[in-house]
Amino acid sequence: MEEQAAVDPRVVRTRNDVLQAALDVLVDEGWDAVTHPHVARVAGYSKATLYAHWPDRLALVRDAFARFGAMPHADPVGTLREDLVVELRSFRSAMVEHRLDRALAVLAERAPTVPELAPVLAAFVAEGERPLRERLTPLLPDPQREVAVLMLCGAVVHARLLHGRAPSDLVLSEAVDAVLRAFDLDPQA
Amino acid sequence: MEEQAAVDPRVVRTRNDVLQAALDVLVDEGWDAVTHPHVARVAGYSKATLYAHWPDRLALVRDAFARFGAMPHADPVGTLREDLVVELRSFRSAMVEHRLDRALAVLAERAPTVPELAPVLAAFVAEGERPLRERLTPLLPDPQREVAVLMLCGAVVHARLLHGRAPSDLVLSEAVDAVLRAFDLDPQA
Repeated sequence: MEEQAAVDPRVVRTRNDVLQAALDVLVDEGWDAVTHPHVARVAGYSKATLYAHWPDRLALVRDAFARFGAMPHADPVGTLREDLVVELRSFRSAMVEHRLDRALAVLAERAPTVPELAPVLAAFVAEGERPLRERLTPLLPDPQREVAVLMLCGAVVHARLLHGRAPSDLVLSEAVDAVLRAFDLDPQA
Repeated sequence: MEEQAAVDPRVVRTRNDVLQAALDVLVDEGWDAVTHPHVARVAGYSKATLYAHWPDRLALVRDAFARFGAMPHADPVGTLREDLVVELRSFRSAMVEHRLDRALAVLAERAPTVPELAPVLAAFVAEGERPLRERLTPLLPDPQREVAVLMLCGAVVHARLLHGRAPSDLVLSEAVDAVLRAFDLDPQA
């Protein structure tokens, strides 16, 4: 399908429209609302079109989540401190503006009872954490790197999903500075 | 109701049985399954008994979550390092053994679309974080204390809810040591 999508711009547009609608339904109305008939109605396409692209519900949900994975991360072009702060801000923006918070909450709630979603969540989280991990890999061995990633991502996740509010710029930069001090990392690296 | 429950041991037992059943249904089958008829069946009581104690579904869910809040925290009786590690391990145990992970995931997923749940989640999280905050309050001002709490709790939440696995003892003690170093706290305090 990817190859076909690359060839025919109408197919690309249909895919984008439908997957955006599927995401909107998921975050606005929850998991149970993501059905072919309902998403087709919201997207303005026929059910037949949706079934032609996505044979079942899980395929539709999986591709919808994949759209988040394709969101650009900030390029790591500055000092270590700058890059970590920028990446946490991107994570926060994705949570708030692209409603990644809702997508993560739905996946975290459903994955334990819908086994097919576990790899979707895993791929999703891995792609989200990738820039942080890549930036820290040459500088910090495990388990310290793992702990640093858990504390940085966890601070954003905990604030947004469990406190119900996005962490401030001050909190994000304090968290980065705390990790730099904790692991004796050069902010200018 | 609390006063009545303190007087009659049968009422206490009924309350406990029903709320445990409500929690079990919630974590095993999800939010939509927590109805008076279904919980009554699982608990082995009549629907009338449930309606007498909990007039609506939200009252039932709210009291079910309150059972988690009553779980004992570890007493902070050791050094700062010991107390923080013990508290994070209690948090992990609650996640895994008492399925706090499921309760938090359901609340985080539902609170944005069920406004009545927002204060339930807030009270739940505040009670969970209370020992950490109390232990750190005399030692660390805000915003550093806020950042420390977000990073410690967030590491456990992120690992369990988004990576799908409980953090190891090593990860927990590394996280505590990182916070102690980052904020120049005396591990023996």
